[in-house]
Amino acid sequence: MANKFGNLFTITTFGESHGPAIGGVIDGCPAGIELDFEAIQNELDRRKPGQSKIVTQRKEPDTVEFMAGIFEGKTTGASIGFRIVNTNQKSKDYSHIKDQYRPSHADYTYSQKYGHRDYKGGGRTSARETANWVVGGAVAKQAIPEIKINAFTSSVGNIHLDTPYQELDFSLIESNIARCPDAKKAEEMIDYISEIKKQGDTVGGVVTCVIQNVPVGLGEPIFDKLHAQLGKAMLSINAVKGFEFGSGFEGAAMTGSQHNDIFNADGSTKTNYSGGIQGGISNGMDIYFKVAFKPVATVIQEQETIDKDGNIVKMMGKGRHDPCVVPRAIPIVEALAAMVIVDNIMLDKARRI
Amino acid sequence: MANKFGNLFTITTFGESHGPAIGGVIDGCPAGIELDFEAIQNELDRRKPGQSKIVTQRKEPDTVEFMAGIFEGKTTGASIGFRIVNTNQKSKDYSHIKDQYRPSHADYTYSQKYGHRDYKGGGRTSARETANWVVGGAVAKQAIPEIKINAFTSSVGNIHLDTPYQELDFSLIESNIARCPDAKKAEEMIDYISEIKKQGDTVGGVVTCVIQNVPVGLGEPIFDKLHAQLGKAMLSINAVKGFEFGSGFEGAAMTGSQHNDIFNADGSTKTNYSGGIQGGISNGMDIYFKVAFKPVATVIQEQETIDKDGNIVKMMGKGRHDPCVVPRAIPIVEALAAMVIVDNIMLDKARRI
Amino acid sequence: MANKFGNLFTITTFGESHGPAIGGVIDGCPAGIELDFEAIQNELDRRKPGQSKIVTQRKEPDTVEFMAGIFEGKTTGASIGFRIVNTNQKSKDYSHIKDQYRPSHADYTYSQKYGHRDYKGGGRTSARETANWVVGGAVAKQAIPEIKINAFTSSVGNIHLDTPYQELDFSLIESNIARCPDAKKAEEMIDYISEIKKQGDTVGGVVTCVIQNVPVGLGEPIFDKLHAQLGKAMLSINAVKGFEFGSGFEGAAMTGSQHNDIFNADGSTKTNYSGGIQGGISNGMDIYFKVAFKPVATVIQEQETIDKDGNIVKMMGKGRHDPCVVPRAIPIVEALAAMVIVDNIMLDKARRI
Amino acid sequence: MANKFGNLFTITTFGESHGPAIGGVIDGCPAGIELDFEAIQNELDRRKPGQSKIVTQRKEPDTVEFMAGIFEGKTTGASIGFRIVNTNQKSKDYSHIKDQYRPSHADYTYSQKYGHRDYKGGGRTSARETANWVVGGAVAKQAIPEIKINAFTSSVGNIHLDTPYQELDFSLIESNIARCPDAKKAEEMIDYISEIKKQGDTVGGVVTCVIQNVPVGLGEPIFDKLHAQLGKAMLSINAVKGFEFGSGFEGAAMTGSQHNDIFNADGSTKTNYSGGIQGGISNGMDIYFKVAFKPVATVIQEQETIDKDGNIVKMMGKGRHDPCVVPRAIPIVEALAAMVIVDNIMLDKARRI
Repeated sequence: MANKFGNLFTITTFGESHGPAIGGVIDGCPAGIELDFEAIQNELDRRKPGQSKIVTQRKEPDTVEFMAGIFEGKTTGASIGFRIVNTNQKSKDYSHIKDQYRPSHADYTYSQKYGHRDYKGGGRTSARETANWVVGGAVAKQAIPEIKINAFTSSVGNIHLDTPYQELDFSLIESNIARCPDAKKAEEMIDYISEIKKQGDTVGGVVTCVIQNVPVGLGEPIFDKLHAQLGKAMLSINAVKGFEFGSGFEGAAMTGSQHNDIFNADGSTKTNYSGGIQGGISNGMDIYFKVAFKPVATVIQEQETIDKDGNIVKMMGKGRHDPCVVPRAIPIVEALAAMVIVDNIMLDKARRI
Repeated sequence: MANKFGNLFTITTFGESHGPAIGGVIDGCPAGIELDFEAIQNELDRRKPGQSKIVTQRKEPDTVEFMAGIFEGKTTGASIGFRIVNTNQKSKDYSHIKDQYRPSHADYTYSQKYGHRDYKGGGRTSARETANWVVGGAVAKQAIPEIKINAFTSSVGNIHLDTPYQELDFSLIESNIARCPDAKKAEEMIDYISEIKKQGDTVGGVVTCVIQNVPVGLGEPIFDKLHAQLGKAMLSINAVKGFEFGSGFEGAAMTGSQHNDIFNADGSTKTNYSGGIQGGISNGMDIYFKVAFKPVATVIQEQETIDKDGNIVKMMGKGRHDPCVVPRAIPIVEALAAMVIVDNIMLDKARRI
Repeated sequence: MANKFGNLFTITTFGESHGPAIGGVIDGCPAGIELDFEAIQNELDRRKPGQSKIVTQRKEPDTVEFMAGIFEGKTTGASIGFRIVNTNQKSKDYSHIKDQYRPSHADYTYSQKYGHRDYKGGGRTSARETANWVVGGAVAKQAIPEIKINAFTSSVGNIHLDTPYQELDFSLIESNIARCPDAKKAEEMIDYISEIKKQGDTVGGVVTCVIQNVPVGLGEPIFDKLHAQLGKAMLSINAVKGFEFGSGFEGAAMTGSQHNDIFNADGSTKTNYSGGIQGGISNGMDIYFKVAFKPVATVIQEQETIDKDGNIVKMMGKGRHDPCVVPRAIPIVEALAAMVIVDNIMLDKARRI
Repeated sequence: MANKFGNLFTITTFGESHGPAIGGVIDGCPAGIELDFEAIQNELDRRKPGQSKIVTQRKEPDTVEFMAGIFEGKTTGASIGFRIVNTNQKSKDYSHIKDQYRPSHADYTYSQKYGHRDYKGGGRTSARETANWVVGGAVAKQAIPEIKINAFTSSVGNIHLDTPYQELDFSLIESNIARCPDAKKAEEMIDYISEIKKQGDTVGGVVTCVIQNVPVGLGEPIFDKLHAQLGKAMLSINAVKGFEFGSGFEGAAMTGSQHNDIFNADGSTKTNYSGGIQGGISNGMDIYFKVAFKPVATVIQEQETIDKDGNIVKMMGKGRHDPCVVPRAIPIVEALAAMVIVDNIMLDKARRI
């Protein structure tokens, strides 16, 4: 609950962006997995701030430090403790935020719920938390090397990549800073984000994720359907407003005779409106889904807001924030997906006593 | 996990449509709630088959029978056991389904996962399960009479009700069999569903749900954000392919300066793109979200499929299925929402020791 | 939590002795297990009231009725719903209990916690609940036929069976109504219980349980040690006041050089003070433990007590209660042990991805 | 599960004694608690090695470092991350243990379960883990300053403190290194442990714990009875073999008319064989229980054992181990008890919606 994710393969996290460190405990990881630490750091680097001109210019090396659960380079089956020291928590002046509630942030709700709030850098609501998830996901990925998980930017504002994912070359995702596997669309997105940034504004976008080579049978019926677990995971990411898989919202306008996925003799299907999941359980086809991100709430423009006493005040956004979170969200989406898949492989194994 | 929903207010369920009964255990319900049994049955009646010409013509009275946890008409705080006897499990011939996998059903995935499958009426994958949820939700609603939960049909196929929910009269939802609070749109929807039904086909749709009068502070940060819990709940409903709240997928195309909800002096906001939830925690504004339903997979048309040995066979849909599930899904969406809200009121109370 | 037991193989229960039925949901049971229904009923018969002269003379057939999760005699992997109809909830006069708190019962604590209390037959606190567990355990046993679980009466009052369990013939447990595999001790116990009963009094006792043929490796480290799970399970049984495994409280008086279990070449140990569990994980040796039961609180003697207004009143125990619960507790101890073992076999399997 | 303890107030831990650090995440701690860090460190000091002549002479400062969840000295309601750096993990030669299984340790079971084992200092099975629990318990204690939790040494070997706890002065517990509130018994215990130590042997003992000023109503019925939660917690401590509360195993020899706790007019009881818990729920009387610890398995004597290939080998215990763990176990027992109580106060609050 709350700060814990997963059923058998779990991650429990802590951390505020302006405290000494963030980190967590990965529990239930099978023993004997030889970890590639460079690959783990590489995932963090894909998420880290300052990596390109279209993300926040804040600098954090985001170096993960493992404290337990690994012996001679392999997982032991014991819980894996890790942390990422915060190196950028400069003694910035937060007095302007302390008593004011930034619009569309969690300042107001946290203040009301907890009374005592860490206002520096958003405290626990900081998206810095997602670096912890990337660590968990990077470990998870190494437990299931046979499964391919690729996320990419499919929309920024009104710029949409409409090409079916089957026609995309996922090896191009990392070839541009937008993380869009279509060079032309990527350029448009980069230009648009740059423009938005100049205006001191921000913009939302959509991430598409494709999971391939998934065995048949993952997912628990009724309340732990595989797509429901994936949906909950994605809706946990800061700024996410929507999730759809397979035919998604468009499927709602279709008829059954159009939408049904007809079988091939080997159990695969001719179409895949189901998105690789039927009755909550994977059918061996590609799993694909979309995640909608709203624009970042911090804009470098003057806004009206209230302080804790209900006075209307003027506020000017400060700080080095992302004009668009989508490019940095790619490894986060993949990380959560990887943890869901490992967890369900373990659950499925347990069921087959 | 699996057949259990919720954290503190939970429901654990069982049942196949063609077995003796479905039912469940509601656990954690606070003591002393005087139950209105007629209201509970009324919710079941809103979901039951045979209620109108645009739903399945199967007849089931769906009478709930409470077996424990209630004394002198009030909840005791003990677990509430209930069941709904299946009266319609006629000794129908299922031999045509036994060894065949219906397209876009869960026949194939269940067979692969469990080996031994109850093929009658879909077994555990039957949407009849949702009657259990309606019972849980009806009890939950009575624990929080001050909170108003209204769901309605906002799309059927390409017929969309685009009126902002604030301009709708929720008292009209039950005035028509489409459960759309706009008489004209409702008529269009009813006509379209009737037409689709004649063709032996089915169609999807969208449900919108609005939760009003929610206290500030509900929801747990990080992995149990209020909207993530709602999303997971909705994605558990059979046929659901997508979930969005507040600005949803449209919000992904907006800029921060457009999307930010500016505060009024009392903590309420001038706009509500946030959908009543900020940082995963309710802010006191209306919570609203949309749920996309794909078309029902059973069509009364000849389809090609495979049998368990991988032979391509012809199959003709039989049975009395819904041409569109959306009108019957309304009470299900409300029920799950009610359980999530009660659960989070309890969680929030626990946090304020 | 609360009314749910287990991690992956779980049982969630409901029921009061004087309501319409008790029952529950067994969730996570692997698919394809061919159930022997007679064996399940037989376990219930070992627990049922009225079975001998030294137990309560109340008559309940305790017939279990399965409602879901079983198809053609085999488990399907879906949740198993069951109930046991209460046939003995006669319209007895409970007015003497309604406003009074029976000493050493849960009347006072339930009243204070829940406010609204079902006072008939103890409501939810009735040990009738344990019939549900026996159903769960009987199903669990059939999932692990290779594992032998035998519980027996090892003490009644001050009559102790001190023979090491290795020298006992477990096939004699069911040969007498005390369920003590030593005919002479059994007779002493029966005589003593009969005597106590005549006095309108009750007496406590101890159950020993031995689990044999357990694979090496069951149990989760740190907070789900196998013995901690067994201990919690046993401490859930009404009237239990203590749990010890292996050397138990006597081990606390030993030295390390006495207590250490020296290995044989095959990994087995020469002694077994560890009780088959080391570091929380089974080592393949017999698991054995003891469970202490206090005397039943209902005595057919006049006692002083208080009513809800704090008045001191006289109260005379009524009803047909057990003079000693231990003989009927045997199948309950075995049932819980069986569920713990199955659960941990599943957990262990999940860990070995 | 596994490395997580608690329902709402939880602790999730990691760490091996010879890795870089141990630590954990305290989740669900209410916001606004002003932490006394000196008091937290003081609890760790009560547990730390090297504190007296009758415990291990290993030196570890055991300084806790908080990394998150605390702002301006108060808890924020966010998860609290902490760690304790291992300063004593010297590059000792463990080659003698690497391939051998020490008798009555977890070497064999861990090797069999996980395959890949951290053999240094026992890896994850090290009782160093309990320092994490002491941190969690120290925070929990500060959330409930009104509740008094006192544990003390009541037996070492065959030296028993039989005085009823009501006649003891708990302020004397810390007055001697045995942590026994009876000066004479303490001296006997200290002498005996010193003697045992000289022999290179170890000895077990018993801890008694008393929890006072507990509100009525804590505990969940059926499977989360307050004493079952306490029992599971205590059985999680390394070396524990038994748990009893109230009358415990002695109660099993009593009759109902002796054992029943007769009420006073105010709801308190004249005797307290129930141990402050009736039907799993606290009744406001003192909660008291006993925990049995076996002797430490590491003895500085030659023992026969096996290596991983099943060869019989001679082994000589090395290292600086405790001759008796009981004095250092006192703060651990209190810590777990404190976490159980806070957790149940929160659960109880949630139930009273």
